[in-house]
Amino acid sequence: VRNYNISVIPGDGIGKEVMPEGIRVLERAASLYGFSITQTWQDFACCDYYAKHGQMMPDDWKDRIGKPDAIFFGAVGWPDTVPDHVSLWGSLLQFRREYDQYVNLRPVRLMPGVPCPLVGREPGDIDFWVVRENTEGEYSSVGGKMFPGTDREIVIQETVMTRHGTDRVLRYAFELAATRERKHVTSATKSNGIAITMPWWDERVVEMGKNYPAVTHDKYHIDILTAQFVLNPDRFDVVVASNLFGDILSDLGPACTGTIGVAPSGNINPDGTHPSLFEPVHGSAPDIAGKGIANPVGQIWSAAMMLEHLGEADAAAAIMRAVETVLAEPGLRTGDLKGKANTEQCGKAIADAL
Amino acid sequence: VRNYNISVIPGDGIGKEVMPEGIRVLERAASLYGFSITQTWQDFACCDYYAKHGQMMPDDWKDRIGKPDAIFFGAVGWPDTVPDHVSLWGSLLQFRREYDQYVNLRPVRLMPGVPCPLVGREPGDIDFWVVRENTEGEYSSVGGKMFPGTDREIVIQETVMTRHGTDRVLRYAFELAATRERKHVTSATKSNGIAITMPWWDERVVEMGKNYPAVTHDKYHIDILTAQFVLNPDRFDVVVASNLFGDILSDLGPACTGTIGVAPSGNINPDGTHPSLFEPVHGSAPDIAGKGIANPVGQIWSAAMMLEHLGEADAAAAIMRAVETVLAEPGLRTGDLKGKANTEQCGKAIADAL
Ligand SMILES: CC(C)[C@H](C(=O)O)[C@@H](O)C(=O)O
Ligand SMILES: CC(C)[C@H](C(=O)O)[C@@H](O)C(=O)O
Repeated sequence: VRNYNISVIPGDGIGKEVMPEGIRVLERAASLYGFSITQTWQDFACCDYYAKHGQMMPDDWKDRIGKPDAIFFGAVGWPDTVPDHVSLWGSLLQFRREYDQYVNLRPVRLMPGVPCPLVGREPGDIDFWVVRENTEGEYSSVGGKMFPGTDREIVIQETVMTRHGTDRVLRYAFELAATRERKHVTSATKSNGIAITMPWWDERVVEMGKNYPAVTHDKYHIDILTAQFVLNPDRFDVVVASNLFGDILSDLGPACTGTIGVAPSGNINPDGTHPSLFEPVHGSAPDIAGKGIANPVGQIWSAAMMLEHLGEADAAAAIMRAVETVLAEPGLRTGDLKGKANTEQCGKAIADAL
Repeated sequence: VRNYNISVIPGDGIGKEVMPEGIRVLERAASLYGFSITQTWQDFACCDYYAKHGQMMPDDWKDRIGKPDAIFFGAVGWPDTVPDHVSLWGSLLQFRREYDQYVNLRPVRLMPGVPCPLVGREPGDIDFWVVRENTEGEYSSVGGKMFPGTDREIVIQETVMTRHGTDRVLRYAFELAATRERKHVTSATKSNGIAITMPWWDERVVEMGKNYPAVTHDKYHIDILTAQFVLNPDRFDVVVASNLFGDILSDLGPACTGTIGVAPSGNINPDGTHPSLFEPVHGSAPDIAGKGIANPVGQIWSAAMMLEHLGEADAAAAIMRAVETVLAEPGLRTGDLKGKANTEQCGKAIADAL
């Protein structure tokens, strides 16, 4: 029987509460679809490892994690004790870089049972992917301060884009579009204002497009693109963006479909040289942590993305059908979706619906 | 009688069509409220000056413009003949810098007659300002390429923030909030990812806030902030942001209220050492140019912002009342708002409603 080694990092806050439901559904899918899961749990979180050792992960974290087939991640962050940039650069952003997870992939999809904040949109109307560059660009640590603490203070931070880093994420986006019905790539740019990196990004998109004659492509400046997400979200198929623009679009997209609380994301190393990491879009949500009311769908949908990535497409599709069935039932959804279930009841309902 | 010298730059495309309506309303307001307007028109546009001379403006453009009390701007851009980054850096962005128009101010307001894309929002529900830093930050021309044209290509662009440039725009935002009922400033940040400039921006916000004990403030990361514009737009009062983040938010905000086609913006030098510039949010719209169907409300609302800036608050308020009256009438609105009027008819209706 096919076995997958999964590194499990629940993290902080509601990460700890939704992870068991993700695992429950994963185990059920495994038994139904003829594979098995070996789990190794890690306590890399603000309220666990950091609280004891003052850093997010041990120095030998790579050895501890080993060579899993994938990482299943909850959410890290506990701003009361650890500043966000410390917790995130010490774990999530570190995985993205060190494991060269150069694609951040998120679906923007209108789901049944999830109220859409946009007028007149129905499930099925909105269904696209945001492909975000996940390792370089605007998220650099290059730069510094001049005349710090004085009136003349100047602070500089560099955006660094490489052809290597840009082309590979563009290639992923075009490859993904080629598998889809509409076969269309939209590139997020700002070449009318960010006058060095973004005109060059536009050129790379045109170059990459030449390799995919069956895929059409266009570009929007990021300002008007965010507006289009609200006004014409049905227009998009695959949207590809730099690290920062992708970060924005992949929160805005789920907001437009009302799915921030339930959407998943993949931090993917498409070359398979390192493990990929799957996590819900939502964070650790300290405000509702500890109550057992968090919505587990984001974690469970992340399990489906992970299985798809591992090659278990049937199991992944089955999980998504079970998720849709449960979301459509008020008695089985959690309270954030005006349902009556708690975290565990919702997770069990999805496992049962499998 | 009070006289204002106004430099008029209609620009390209629909800029040329909506400007006469802006002027019409301005003249009417002047005659009703006891002031006069002296206009000096300039042909600084892709299809005028650039077509003849290969640059957007003459080298002595500052002398030609002289020392007006304000600049009334339509829209520039004609991508078929002039790349956007050339036309914009050669005019609009040049004014912003050379005239040190360090605040870009845009209202986000739900207006009658303008269909809102968000579920269940009514005129009055959404009413806030976006204050954007308009001269520095992410829009720098510092950077370049290494190994150009090769597989090792690296492209770098620097974000440059200064204490001088940051503090003054923050001060403007806090001053503006202090005049409003809710007295609240929201800062757009990304200090969890953009780890040099943005944590510093956050510190400057906290410092500036200390001078305004009556004004409350909070911060959101730009990704979740764009989501909040869609999910909870009624939450905001004054939103302050860096150049890039403000660019995004000030298109997204009007999109959320359906007002991109009618919203205005001010490029303001609050110190009065240089003229400020007022322009509609929309661009030159080559696709509908020449048909006489463009919506003139953005230009007219910009006239109201300009008069407010010049100290003619009564006239400005009267124009806004006239705009709201006309927008509420399908027979007087333009076709983009499912109305029956053309550009001129709509402009005349607003002048008459004054
Ligand atoms: C046209 C472009 C350079 C400009 C900007 O990004 O500043 C525009 O989007 C705006 O907001 O005025
Ligand atoms: C928490 C933060 C650093 C992170 C990012 O900006 O990448 C998050 O917003 C995300 O999208 O995963």
